[in-house]
Amino acid sequence: MKAGYFQTHPEFGEVNRNIEQVAARLGSVDCDLLVLPEFAFTGYQFIGLEEVIELSERVPDGPTTQACIEFARRYRMHVVAGLPEKAGPHCYNSAIVVGPSGFLGCYRKTHLFCEETLFFSPGDSGFKVWDVGPARIGVMICFDWYYPESARTLALQGADILCHPSNLVLPHCPDAMVTRSLENRIFSITANRVGQEARGDKPPLTFIGKSEVVSPAGRILARASADTPELTVVEIDVNEARNKSINPYNELLKDRRPGHYCS
Amino acid sequence: MKAGYFQTHPEFGEVNRNIEQVAARLGSVDCDLLVLPEFAFTGYQFIGLEEVIELSERVPDGPTTQACIEFARRYRMHVVAGLPEKAGPHCYNSAIVVGPSGFLGCYRKTHLFCEETLFFSPGDSGFKVWDVGPARIGVMICFDWYYPESARTLALQGADILCHPSNLVLPHCPDAMVTRSLENRIFSITANRVGQEARGDKPPLTFIGKSEVVSPAGRILARASADTPELTVVEIDVNEARNKSINPYNELLKDRRPGHYCS
Repeated sequence: MKAGYFQTHPEFGEVNRNIEQVAARLGSVDCDLLVLPEFAFTGYQFIGLEEVIELSERVPDGPTTQACIEFARRYRMHVVAGLPEKAGPHCYNSAIVVGPSGFLGCYRKTHLFCEETLFFSPGDSGFKVWDVGPARIGVMICFDWYYPESARTLALQGADILCHPSNLVLPHCPDAMVTRSLENRIFSITANRVGQEARGDKPPLTFIGKSEVVSPAGRILARASADTPELTVVEIDVNEARNKSINPYNELLKDRRPGHYCS
Repeated sequence: MKAGYFQTHPEFGEVNRNIEQVAARLGSVDCDLLVLPEFAFTGYQFIGLEEVIELSERVPDGPTTQACIEFARRYRMHVVAGLPEKAGPHCYNSAIVVGPSGFLGCYRKTHLFCEETLFFSPGDSGFKVWDVGPARIGVMICFDWYYPESARTLALQGADILCHPSNLVLPHCPDAMVTRSLENRIFSITANRVGQEARGDKPPLTFIGKSEVVSPAGRILARASADTPELTVVEIDVNEARNKSINPYNELLKDRRPGHYCS
């Protein structure tokens, strides 16, 4: 199957324009599964709760989810994209999964990073896996990478591909995702954004780009630049992620010894 | 405190000579904690069970443990070193912890790699932590790195330093240990060996060297070459590993959400 990332450069608060820019690019792409960044259409650096509430949307009824369903249908691809979700009294840092058949589901970020803790509720969805044609995909968002339990939980649920919408500002994640793929023998697609935000009197954030696709053997199949928008799709064989054999004597998941692990 | 690795090049089966070579080098070293490789004095590539039984020793009564106690006393340092351990009907891939006060304990490798599964019993000790003066150390052996649960379990038990005797032949571990340190905010000391073994009619093994010390912030404080014996000691402040704050909003271990993890 053809899977990849769209490393974008959204303009803060310009949701419609950011959606249009993504949609306009998709018509020329042959792709089965595309991962977009965390907060793909809103931007990241919220300066207060009011702004968060204003830019958060219901899922799946809100316009962003509906727009994603629309272009997933039109271009016959599955899309994973981050957005601020409004649900009752809560806002969540969420990612939706949509496809040609419509809305598939939503993941709410488990491990909130830094000032996100001021504005968003800790995710209550848990880690989930969806069937998207030939592959089972699991979703984790940005800082979830820091906790190996995130990727492991998705692998134990049978994910073939980690879809990882991100807004990375720290340097370690691109290399760490090689370890995440390897230790779970699973594909990973990290979709990061580029550009800077320095809103209100907040210190500037520089997003580090380097979106990537990593194979279950820990090979970097594609890695984007640090500062330029980029849509990259690679051909992957999901069966590679289903073969958990490391060598004739070691089966990755079967050889776990949970009785010796602290949880 | 001063902590480091001794990247060695043992000759297979020449236990006494390998011990003497290590001991001879220690007199000139100012060190509080030194990590030696997996199977530090026997070599790695056993060709049959008889050989394993012949080279395995009781712990702590066997000559290798006694020799390590002797040089730990003489040079007033703690030493972690791998050896094949004989215990009743079993042989284990083990690592001993010894210090100026004598024998402290033994860890038996939890995740056996490749043909080790033919000759050794899976470790039954579980992951353990020892106080060695200013630091608490945890021990894991070589392929244990592949399973993030190993380092996590030691961190949750309060380890400041992962002591990681290894005989690495695959390329990924040195970079992955940066992730292991970072995701646990813990020091790690990987002591690998160098050289080749091609015993009996077995395919040759090339050990990749690159022993290293990594800080809790994921900084490589020292990394050895791929092919040369090397003893390196660095000054570390264990308090760095006790500060689990990532930023003013995130505390690494407190922010775990075990209710959402599969174990």
